Amino acid sequence: MRTSGSTELDHTHDPSARSCVPGADGHPDFPIQNLPLGLFSPEGGTTRAGVAIGDQILDLAAAQAAGLVTGDAARAVTAAESGDLNGMLALGTGPRRALREQLFALLRADGPDRDRVPPLLHAAASCTLHLPARIGDYTDFFVGIDHATNTGRQFRPEQPLLPNYRHVPVGYHGRASSIRPSGVPVRRPHGQAKPPHLDAPVFGPSRRLDYELELGVWIGPGNALGTPVPIAEAAGQVAGFCLLNDWSARDIQGWEYQPLGPFLAKSFATTISPWIVTPEALAPFRIPQTARPSGDPDPLPYLLDEADQAGGALDLELDILLSTRAAREAGLPPHRVARSNARHMYWTVAQMIAHHTSGGCNLRPGDLLGTGTLSGPDPESCGSLLETTHGGKAPIRLASGEERRFLEDGDEVILTARGLREGFAPIGFGACRATVCPAPVYPAPAYPAP
Amino acid sequence: MRTSGSTELDHTHDPSARSCVPGADGHPDFPIQNLPLGLFSPEGGTTRAGVAIGDQILDLAAAQAAGLVTGDAARAVTAAESGDLNGMLALGTGPRRALREQLFALLRADGPDRDRVPPLLHAAASCTLHLPARIGDYTDFFVGIDHATNTGRQFRPEQPLLPNYRHVPVGYHGRASSIRPSGVPVRRPHGQAKPPHLDAPVFGPSRRLDYELELGVWIGPGNALGTPVPIAEAAGQVAGFCLLNDWSARDIQGWEYQPLGPFLAKSFATTISPWIVTPEALAPFRIPQTARPSGDPDPLPYLLDEADQAGGALDLELDILLSTRAAREAGLPPHRVARSNARHMYWTVAQMIAHHTSGGCNLRPGDLLGTGTLSGPDPESCGSLLETTHGGKAPIRLASGEERRFLEDGDEVILTARGLREGFAPIGFGACRATVCPAPVYPAPAYPAP
Repeated sequence: MRTSGSTELDHTHDPSARSCVPGADGHPDFPIQNLPLGLFSPEGGTTRAGVAIGDQILDLAAAQAAGLVTGDAARAVTAAESGDLNGMLALGTGPRRALREQLFALLRADGPDRDRVPPLLHAAASCTLHLPARIGDYTDFFVGIDHATNTGRQFRPEQPLLPNYRHVPVGYHGRASSIRPSGVPVRRPHGQAKPPHLDAPVFGPSRRLDYELELGVWIGPGNALGTPVPIAEAAGQVAGFCLLNDWSARDIQGWEYQPLGPFLAKSFATTISPWIVTPEALAPFRIPQTARPSGDPDPLPYLLDEADQAGGALDLELDILLSTRAAREAGLPPHRVARSNARHMYWTVAQMIAHHTSGGCNLRPGDLLGTGTLSGPDPESCGSLLETTHGGKAPIRLASGEERRFLEDGDEVILTARGLREGFAPIGFGACRATVCPAPVYPAPAYPAP
Repeated sequence: MRTSGSTELDHTHDPSARSCVPGADGHPDFPIQNLPLGLFSPEGGTTRAGVAIGDQILDLAAAQAAGLVTGDAARAVTAAESGDLNGMLALGTGPRRALREQLFALLRADGPDRDRVPPLLHAAASCTLHLPARIGDYTDFFVGIDHATNTGRQFRPEQPLLPNYRHVPVGYHGRASSIRPSGVPVRRPHGQAKPPHLDAPVFGPSRRLDYELELGVWIGPGNALGTPVPIAEAAGQVAGFCLLNDWSARDIQGWEYQPLGPFLAKSFATTISPWIVTPEALAPFRIPQTARPSGDPDPLPYLLDEADQAGGALDLELDILLSTRAAREAGLPPHRVARSNARHMYWTVAQMIAHHTSGGCNLRPGDLLGTGTLSGPDPESCGSLLETTHGGKAPIRLASGEERRFLEDGDEVILTARGLREGFAPIGFGACRATVCPAPVYPAPAYPAP
């Protein structure tokens, strides 16, 4: 069963389609061609499933109660009644696609039910957005080859890119409990680090706090333990995408990461954009997999699929913006510190999933995968400050006149993603943003220092 | 608030106490002094909370319905009505201790309600045991210094123990979805490996499948994101212990683990013993922390607590037994391949928790920590075949006359733990066992090999 139908284009991608919702047409993120899924609470209301349209959120259960969503699409809405989207994601491509088609028909400017739409809408600005699903496990990959090379140079100057990189979609397990939606502040972590000039490690607030620009991938149906997902079926496991900031404390990371990988350097916080942008919405931005230079070894057969090679990569413009406290006080807009693109993934999402499950590991609906930092080959496309500032040696200068080697308290980091293709409506992901707040006062050690 | 009261001894540790449940006195694992918590289904019945006593399981909700559990103890039972023990674990030490005291009184041979006990019991042999909690996140540490040294030698002969080891309780995030209770067979995983004599990696069933002997630690109340748990309060976060087999594919591990740590080499399966042995039951087996040789650097203050140094280690005899198919067919008992002890932990459980949360990472009720492999200093006390057979170079000979370098299909691995101390009733954990079954037929690659 081939399930990678996510490159198909249909009438829901028609760039000339207009919406009955004021402000949706030409909206930078959420025109009628996007229709991402999320979990929200209106002011004073319960948590429920919704779809972003312009600056509004459509209440899915209300649409179903009004008889405006039926059949397979109604199954998807019913599956989300438990207070998260896990059940909806578990249903896979069919019901999700049916829901998209019915919502597209409902929200069209010329739709027969357009007069029944306004009561179903809530102003997004007055709603709280939640993590869309209970995340059972979170896995972070390392598929940005330029990032792997750039950061490898910081940690291992003698061998930046390890011999396994071009064969293995390298990944590691991340921490699910500390993933938060956009807007939740991030506390600077304490931790152990050993600066080069000291003989022994010290403990204190991280001095090398960094962001990492990534895409997140939501898992749909999942697989049974012991049953690998073949590469040709892997795309059918994808329920959607988000932006992901894999906050990283570089001083802690450099000291702790051998031999078992990053741990506390990452587990203090991960921020994601709360809307699930579906594979259907991203179909126009599918491109051939080109990040693997010719001459590199072919992927092993379990990672190789013709359709995936032809259309498994994504062309999404990815920006990192930084807004310092001083800049905000001066009324300056966020400063763009990097522009990258999702096309720089050395391994496709299908390859990540086929590899992840190849030993029998089971994925569950609502699991989250991170791509790893998506840097491009140019200095202006680095997905982390570690790369941009060469490990803090070459500070960047902001429009406010300030310099940054790493993040300071009060800095807000904003990630954005945009699909842009001639002949199609641009769509975005909504923001993935969070402000760094000071480290907590560390609880006094109960035992005097020796 | 100091919460590490788990070393206190009281009347529930009286070795002369006898139980009204036939077979409980002198039971190798579950005499009246143990009373571990679990989740079970009787034949044809629903999933419910229970306590092991001898070869029986006491139904906690039935005991409460009969009015035999009251007050704080009843709160603990009510919290487990949702079909898992997360809510009970979240309540922390007080209600758990109250439950222990009331059950001890109920199950005594001379207890006033002893005649009302039999209807509450189910024969364990006819019940199914489940994972006791939904495991939100699973973290595996590396606190066995002999294991770290022995395995480090296999992967990095030039530097077995890295410079951070004596300062950092090294750990990594593990995979929660593939944790299974004792008895569930383990499928040999496929994976990528690069044998030294080949220039490129190959994909196929692991040829170097191994076990790892660990203790698991169940988290109780948990902490809020951004709020570290001070070392003096860390013991209050422990809800109990289990045995944990961290199955490992050494050929996959050796090729994939740089630079982000083990991933598919571990994520295909983790087996745990299903009973939660409480800190109260283990109080008699608390000993001073002695695994850190004098002359090693002192732990940093956030990891140092007088009470933890004085009684934070555990004296538990840990055995690894191997039962091959041929041995079973010949009627031979399982062969003991190693005997180790939990006292070989370089870091205490409280240190693991204080470190894990030191950067603000939040633990949630029902999270699971693994200690890492608990090898001792002697060849007979190695917690993995990688160590025992020197990476497969020196096979072990079994009583059946067979040899093993790594595990073969049909091998059953059995881990046991026993607290033994003069003047106290011995207690055990119940078995952590699973049989290796053959790798699945790998789904045919959709793309021909080049």
